[in-house]
Amino acid sequence: MKIEQRFPAETDREAAIGVFDSGIGGLTVVKALMERLPFEHIHYFGDTARVPYGIKSVQTIQSFSAQIADFLLERRVKMLVVACNTMAAVAGDLIKKRSGVPVLDVIAAGADAAVAATRKRAIGIIGTPTTINSNAYARAIHALDGQVRVYSQACPLFVPLVEEGWLDHPVTRLTAEEYLKPVFVESVDTLVLGCTHYPLLKPLLQDVVGGSMHLIDSALTVAEEAARLLQSNGMENTSRQTPEYRFFVTDIPLRFQALGSRFLGRDLPLVQTVSLPG
Amino acid sequence: MKIEQRFPAETDREAAIGVFDSGIGGLTVVKALMERLPFEHIHYFGDTARVPYGIKSVQTIQSFSAQIADFLLERRVKMLVVACNTMAAVAGDLIKKRSGVPVLDVIAAGADAAVAATRKRAIGIIGTPTTINSNAYARAIHALDGQVRVYSQACPLFVPLVEEGWLDHPVTRLTAEEYLKPVFVESVDTLVLGCTHYPLLKPLLQDVVGGSMHLIDSALTVAEEAARLLQSNGMENTSRQTPEYRFFVTDIPLRFQALGSRFLGRDLPLVQTVSLPG
Repeated sequence: MKIEQRFPAETDREAAIGVFDSGIGGLTVVKALMERLPFEHIHYFGDTARVPYGIKSVQTIQSFSAQIADFLLERRVKMLVVACNTMAAVAGDLIKKRSGVPVLDVIAAGADAAVAATRKRAIGIIGTPTTINSNAYARAIHALDGQVRVYSQACPLFVPLVEEGWLDHPVTRLTAEEYLKPVFVESVDTLVLGCTHYPLLKPLLQDVVGGSMHLIDSALTVAEEAARLLQSNGMENTSRQTPEYRFFVTDIPLRFQALGSRFLGRDLPLVQTVSLPG
Repeated sequence: MKIEQRFPAETDREAAIGVFDSGIGGLTVVKALMERLPFEHIHYFGDTARVPYGIKSVQTIQSFSAQIADFLLERRVKMLVVACNTMAAVAGDLIKKRSGVPVLDVIAAGADAAVAATRKRAIGIIGTPTTINSNAYARAIHALDGQVRVYSQACPLFVPLVEEGWLDHPVTRLTAEEYLKPVFVESVDTLVLGCTHYPLLKPLLQDVVGGSMHLIDSALTVAEEAARLLQSNGMENTSRQTPEYRFFVTDIPLRFQALGSRFLGRDLPLVQTVSLPG
């Protein structure tokens, strides 16, 4: 049963949407938000100095996530979108408790879309080891429909393969076949891409799993959910100005612009480097 | 021309060797030190909360490296070994300036061994993107012999493949063939494994490049250099007690014990979690 989130009375509908991520994979969510909500300001935070989160402990991820939520809340965003599946999986509740504004996350949105899509009531989930071990997708799906069977598979090599740019490479295909073998055995008809990097592998994955498998892209589904929540609460930005996009990161590593542009699907504007405590 | 490093007059020869790394890959260096210097105490620091460094900026790596050096120096180690190639490449000089004790690093040791091994005076280097982009191996090699030709290749997928445990897997073989194609074209006879993770791929890599290629394992070479420096300065621990091994990390992620044991080549003892500022 979903509890509808509410906006505080004093919310400024022209305030930005705050999107946050452990690195730059969350730019796939920004891309989906830009296309679905083209008049909304977006402030993005990527913790590029400490990425990746998918291999860190729950305690560390929670502590880092709280710092980032605070940074964006201080910038008076009207809504938070947790773009990183790993953060959503292990720190989603903590962020919701900390925040006075609605918090959307890729896991809740992906679970909704998957339950709506499956005909056989059997869903596969792929993600980082931490996301999969958290069992957060299975919990979100079973909260919606206790009869759905869920099969999970960690795919730790997909993130580095995407970052290497091997989006349609024999190595990536062989890796996908290896990881998805256990999923094939089960008769799932819907596969959730439970990591912000995976939408870039969608063509290859669709090819590996066959055209009849429904792939759930959580970037698209969370953007859809954001649009629905803003509209149902009368909180869309109704000004028709060109929106402001701000990008904050904790580090600007090698190949950052090239990689960021790949995720964002367009040239990445200038980013600003900031420090977080601890 | 190598400048021999000196120990301060007050050095306690029973003090530990401090080994530091961005994560747990440096345990391959600890393994080599344990075997080469079985009476030395070793204090290891792995920055597992912020690993991997190979994708971060030079400035961030320098700042993190300085924090770790200070942590180990406060523990009064008699010598520092920088096990991480990326740290050695971009923060080696900074650490040497900061430290009153001798500082050995995997790059200097690997360059020495490679120059001694090559007959054709043509050396290949493989490592993380940051290590390769730093050009630190080429500089270290040319400081020893300006006539040697150096060919470098970044192999960003090798670290995640090792961490996935695919040490002898078709995906790893295909990846190695792809990365090493440009090295094959050149007539190198010596290949430096310029990353602490790569020794675990040695059998597969030897197979891919052929048995006549000389592989330089920088964990072994830096342990050899540590032994030489301690002996030539009369700084070996001459007590015949069982040495003390301490392992400090900034995070204990999933599969840490299993992965650590794989690098160390034996059961990983209990580790202690510590926090660093910033």
